[in-house]
Amino acid sequence: MNPRFFGLPLMGLFIFCSCTTLRGTGDLGLIIERADGRVAILETSRPQLLGSIPGLGDLSHASAVYSRDGRFAFIFGRDGGLTKVDLLTRKIVKRVLQAGNSIGGAISRDGSMVAVSNYEPGGIKVFASDDLTQIADIAAKGPTGTPSKVVGLMDAGGQRFIFSLFDGGETWIADVANPQDIKIQKFKAGLQPYDALLTSDGRYYITGLFGEDGLALLDLWYPEKGMNKILSGYGQGKEKLPVYKMPHLQGWAAAGEYFFLPAIGAKELLVMKRDQWTIHQRIPLVGQPIMAMASPDGQQVWVNFAFPDNQNLQVIDVKNLQVAKNLQPGKGVLHMEFTPRGDQLWLSVRDEDRVEVWDPQQFKKLTEMKVLKPSGIFMSARAHRIGL
Amino acid sequence: MNPRFFGLPLMGLFIFCSCTTLRGTGDLGLIIERADGRVAILETSRPQLLGSIPGLGDLSHASAVYSRDGRFAFIFGRDGGLTKVDLLTRKIVKRVLQAGNSIGGAISRDGSMVAVSNYEPGGIKVFASDDLTQIADIAAKGPTGTPSKVVGLMDAGGQRFIFSLFDGGETWIADVANPQDIKIQKFKAGLQPYDALLTSDGRYYITGLFGEDGLALLDLWYPEKGMNKILSGYGQGKEKLPVYKMPHLQGWAAAGEYFFLPAIGAKELLVMKRDQWTIHQRIPLVGQPIMAMASPDGQQVWVNFAFPDNQNLQVIDVKNLQVAKNLQPGKGVLHMEFTPRGDQLWLSVRDEDRVEVWDPQQFKKLTEMKVLKPSGIFMSARAHRIGL
Repeated sequence: MNPRFFGLPLMGLFIFCSCTTLRGTGDLGLIIERADGRVAILETSRPQLLGSIPGLGDLSHASAVYSRDGRFAFIFGRDGGLTKVDLLTRKIVKRVLQAGNSIGGAISRDGSMVAVSNYEPGGIKVFASDDLTQIADIAAKGPTGTPSKVVGLMDAGGQRFIFSLFDGGETWIADVANPQDIKIQKFKAGLQPYDALLTSDGRYYITGLFGEDGLALLDLWYPEKGMNKILSGYGQGKEKLPVYKMPHLQGWAAAGEYFFLPAIGAKELLVMKRDQWTIHQRIPLVGQPIMAMASPDGQQVWVNFAFPDNQNLQVIDVKNLQVAKNLQPGKGVLHMEFTPRGDQLWLSVRDEDRVEVWDPQQFKKLTEMKVLKPSGIFMSARAHRIGL
Repeated sequence: MNPRFFGLPLMGLFIFCSCTTLRGTGDLGLIIERADGRVAILETSRPQLLGSIPGLGDLSHASAVYSRDGRFAFIFGRDGGLTKVDLLTRKIVKRVLQAGNSIGGAISRDGSMVAVSNYEPGGIKVFASDDLTQIADIAAKGPTGTPSKVVGLMDAGGQRFIFSLFDGGETWIADVANPQDIKIQKFKAGLQPYDALLTSDGRYYITGLFGEDGLALLDLWYPEKGMNKILSGYGQGKEKLPVYKMPHLQGWAAAGEYFFLPAIGAKELLVMKRDQWTIHQRIPLVGQPIMAMASPDGQQVWVNFAFPDNQNLQVIDVKNLQVAKNLQPGKGVLHMEFTPRGDQLWLSVRDEDRVEVWDPQQFKKLTEMKVLKPSGIFMSARAHRIGL
């Protein structure tokens, strides 16, 4: 064979190799660049940006989950787009427009299925995580029979997903082990569930109620006990402030022996003693809290705020339940994410097009980088966690 | 240039590429093949073995920790060898014989340093995780001034490591942030600490005492309170059996509101209520327990046993604290490891040269593979956990 021809396929191989460097995926993550429909890929070992992936559509309020190998992220966009991206090649693997308006999703515990919760037309859809072919389409009609927005979608173990109906006032557990025969358990949650959290062991599902002054709790170890109201009337006798932004329940924190919950329409953090489900203490804050993120060692809870106080960050010392630090990183502190063992905290300063990396123990900024309108930050270690 | 010569370097490139496929590292792990000084590399997404890495020396009782990206493992061999292996290329990156007899190690929370604890000559050594150059050599001389074996070495946050002196009867915290000026805090532990556990939030360090009928607890949030004895006299009034194998404290389990501890020289599992540190219940077992491994959802605790009962596995239902299942996978069930979200349990059956993969919820064996004298199994997701 003429060596000239022989060389050609190898040239192609050379190009292939040069753009895909062999590396681990445990120190990767992504940052939502909401204004440009793009995600930036980050590395934490040497805190830096590796590149970005465009073409993801409307990413306002977008969130992400990871494949079990940590290589692929599934991004849920506001425009109903479900996009699978490859963090190594930094390319879109597959993108489907699966609804008119989606607000979040979850991946099954074995990583085989990705579920998306929708506002418009409501309900959830389930897709195969490898090629995004649709496996199930579950309409969410409440007791009145009208379609409902779905919120607080989480993996419930096995081939099951748990979620709540905003309009229907119910929480459902759907078992899609057999897509031809989907089994659904229904629980009465209360007025307008608007988001939910699942504890890291997958046991307690708590949904916040916008239509009631309280929350609803389901113990997945004992579903037969049904849902129970907790913290009922926690806002009573308090001056109600206009709600500029709903708190994120997935931003609620469990640390030490406590849960930390942002109150709705109040400038305070609610502290609930673990396993008691009653208010242990209220921590006054500089604004209405949006997210409370606990450090992996459970010693700190970092809190960000709704407009007009969103230039602030406050850090709670879990030892004494007091504000240990007041920080002002910049306008529009939208999201915080710890590295899995807590040596770094990454935060988005949206209105100043900046992401900052901090040493949370020393309250020291390690570095910062320019990112256009950054919002959510999601580390690949989420692949290995329950309830995210 | 003659295309024939032009082709040669590309041939080399071709060989390079063909043996290093781009992939995520979050679904990888390794299995210690103790008799052959080799580790097998496993994948959990499609449960299988990908290959193996030979030349690691004496791996009896070997353990491993992971780099923060999940690509590299640091393996601690009984012969004092510290070996850094690459799970992607399946090659040894670096190997140093750092002592005569080592029994375990830890990686700092930021992943920059790896520490090894030694029996012979005792003490610990600290190495840079990138190239294994030695950073520190800390002799462990107890109150009497004699060198001591070191056990229960863990990452204590920041640049700190915590460990216990078997002969010295103390627990030390060494801060190596400045290797020229290492700071050491010492605590009185008790007679012959033989292993230790650190809770997943890095707060509670508990060391088992071989020379006393009890354990010693240090709260790292309040080190000034010193170490306190817990479960003192838990074996009193019980028939003492000959101890064939020391229980693994790193195999102790925290699940739901309980801790599960294998008793020494007794056929029972001790159940301790979280935050109370007293015996809540004793669960009778078929043999002397070695390890108690909790499922990530906290609903099960899997227990294996010392000779002559090591063909057994018993599964505790955390809901009612009773044995829910009795299994007999084969002779020499040495180690169990869950995937990080609990959809699989991998276990070593040493005497039958077999590793089995189970669906722990269904108690169903998914697959098995031939592995020579398998012992420890370590998933790469450990890279993201505190206290392992």
